[in-house]
Order: sequence, then C-alpha cells, then structure tokens
Amino acid sequence: MFDAYGTLFDVHSVIALCEQLWPGKGAALSQLWRAKQLEYTWQRSLMRRYEDFARVTEAGLLYACLALRLPLDEERRRSLMSAYLRLSPFPEVREVLATFKASKLKLAILSNGSPAMLRPLVAAAGLGGLIRTIISVDARKIYKPAPAVYRLAVERLRAPKTSIGFVSSNCWDACGAKSFGFRTFWINRTGAPVDELGATPDHVIGSLAELPALIRRPLS
Amino acid sequence: MFDAYGTLFDVHSVIALCEQLWPGKGAALSQLWRAKQLEYTWQRSLMRRYEDFARVTEAGLLYACLALRLPLDEERRRSLMSAYLRLSPFPEVREVLATFKASKLKLAILSNGSPAMLRPLVAAAGLGGLIRTIISVDARKIYKPAPAVYRLAVERLRAPKTSIGFVSSNCWDACGAKSFGFRTFWINRTGAPVDELGATPDHVIGSLAELPALIRRPLS
Repeated sequence: MFDAYGTLFDVHSVIALCEQLWPGKGAALSQLWRAKQLEYTWQRSLMRRYEDFARVTEAGLLYACLALRLPLDEERRRSLMSAYLRLSPFPEVREVLATFKASKLKLAILSNGSPAMLRPLVAAAGLGGLIRTIISVDARKIYKPAPAVYRLAVERLRAPKTSIGFVSSNCWDACGAKSFGFRTFWINRTGAPVDELGATPDHVIGSLAELPALIRRPLS
Repeated sequence: MFDAYGTLFDVHSVIALCEQLWPGKGAALSQLWRAKQLEYTWQRSLMRRYEDFARVTEAGLLYACLALRLPLDEERRRSLMSAYLRLSPFPEVREVLATFKASKLKLAILSNGSPAMLRPLVAAAGLGGLIRTIISVDARKIYKPAPAVYRLAVERLRAPKTSIGFVSSNCWDACGAKSFGFRTFWINRTGAPVDELGATPDHVIGSLAELPALIRRPLS
C-alpha cells in the first residue's frame, strides 16, 4: 500500500508551472504551498474542521501566494490546481508497480487526497491498470497520521494489519502507520533524519526501486 | 488569556545561544527547531502518542541538529533546553500585563508547555506577580488546536467561553480558539497572511501594545 503525494507522485513537479507564472519564485512557492497544505491537514483534523484535500490544497496555495506576494488571479489558480491532477510519477514508479503486480501482490493507494483528485492523478500517469484500489481518508473525514485512516485501509483491504506493507516518503506518515501496526517503508529521498515520533519505520530506503528486494512475496 | 510561546515569550531568543554554539547557524537552527516542535505536537496528537512539551521540544532540537549537521553533545543539549526555560518576554509584555492587572481583568496563560516548563519561564521573566493562572494542555494530553484544550481553559477559569479573550501570535492557535468560541486576538508580528482554517481571528494586531485599547473593561 502506497501513499500518493510525494511517494508515487512528485508534488514538486508543479515547480515548472509556478516558475513559468512567476519566474524565479517557482521552488519557493512549491515548498510553501506543500508545507501549508500539510499543516492545514493536521490543524483542521485537530480542530475537527475537516475539509477535503482539494479545498485544503487550494487554501495552501492561496496562503503561499499571499505570503510570497505573488498575485494569484482566477486563471492562474485554476491552472495550478489543475496541475495537481497531473503530477509526475517518480521515474521508477511504473516499473516497480509492474514488478509487484506480476508477483501477484495486491496493490493499493492510501492517501489524504479526495477520490476526485486521486482518480485523475492515477489515470493521467497511466497507472490505472497497475493499481486499482484507491483508499481516501475522505471516507473518515480526518487526515493522516490519525489511526482512523490506517484502520480504514484494513477494513477496505479486508486483511490483517500485520500483512499490510505501507510505503511513504513522508516520514511522519510512515511513523503513523508503524504506530498503527503496519510494516512500514520510508522512502527517504533527501537523506533527512528520522522523525522523533515514538514509532520508527521498519525500513528506510532511497527510492521505490529498492522495494522489490525487500518484498519478494506476499507479506502474509 | 494568553498563549505563551511566541506570544508572551520570544522562542527565537535562543538564537543568541545557538549562534554562540554554531556561528552562522543560529537563525536556521532556531527556525527548524521551532517548526519541528510544532509539527510534532500536531502529529503526536493525531497519532495519540502524546508526550509532554519538554520531550517534544527536545525531539525538535535533536531533529534540527541532525538535519543541519550540527553536532549536539550532552552539554549543548542541556544548555539549549535550559535556555528554553529563560526565553525573553517581548518588550511590551510587562507593561501590558500590568495595565490589565490594574484594571482588574483576570489574567491567565493557556499553553502547550508543561507546568514544569511554564513556571520557571514566567518566574525567570519576573511576571509571576502579574499572571498567576497557568493552564497547561498537559492535563488533557493533547495539543492545540484541539477543542479539548480550549475547553480545559473554560473549566479552569470557571467562566463562559464568550467572556474569555484569547491572545496568540500563532495564527492557527487563534483560529482554533475562535473555532471553539473565544473572542480572539492574533498578534501578527511579521505581517503574515491569515491562515485558511475556516475560522478567522476577531482582531489582528501588530503587538500586545495594541490590546488595552481593544479591551477597556472585563469582557463580560
């Protein structure tokens, strides 16, 4: 089971469009946009004011543009939000998913994204034939790393949690999944330290390409 | 009722010591330390793995030093954690609190900090005679902006929530308190945009010095 944003799909693939709209500001905008998007998921979950990930993503964009003093008109807002439906998958994703599919592992996505964001994203990347089970936190109206989210996946997959391997590039997500009881794989693409959250990922790897060697057969 | 960290006390007053320990890195360390400290409060609350604020603050420091490749030995760790018990109050704090106290308003602190962190902090700043009621989220084992925290304050103060004014420099904290039902004052020291969290602070001011003009008598 894979996280989507940052794990299968590169959230910073929006930098190119950001850069085109505001030359020299693309990377800064993308970083702040992503940071606020995540903060809002945690804060809204704690406040019990859940809004779906499209709304939270747009709120993060609005905040980031205001903070960086980048004028966001309706057309730019729409084109950036639409870019979020066409994020690039990381280069190794297709081959790794194809390898797992060939070995009869059941593949799934567990993501903060709403179904309306995830389906076009998977389709645009041409991954629909490889990964069909898409589980969205939207069914529980709370965001990761709340245990309710990981529990939802157990219910949907109808499998014991110890038989589920969860892969995320977001360390706090891998820690949350580990705390819940999954076997976890943290994709540490940037050489960051492990987060200090009282639960540590079982495996730390540099990209999805290292996964098949760790999982040669169904986990059960 | 006042938030403590960032509102009455300048969390970045540790920069001087950080800078002394690692010249040229003080500001970056202080920023990342604070950012991770806050992230951990949200993530641990959602994970239901509460640890007190001293532990979370130390975890943020460890992460930040690892990420910035700053060697943190036992002596440095202790001296930085101890600096967190002696953060500088913002320059206007004493006078504003004295003004309110003279006008018979009941003053309180509502903070993520544990009692063992808050008491020495208030005492070291010489504010113990001005603000005696210190309410810590530690009694509820969850962090801001969870409604349980703001509800705790209502219980401790034995006052209706509409009679409580809450002051924070952390916009998400002011939004959380507003969402709960307090009259809220956001101290926006840096000219940041309002967070997009579905609840907006009632007042936005540049420093505590603007508060007395807004609150001339007990709110009730």
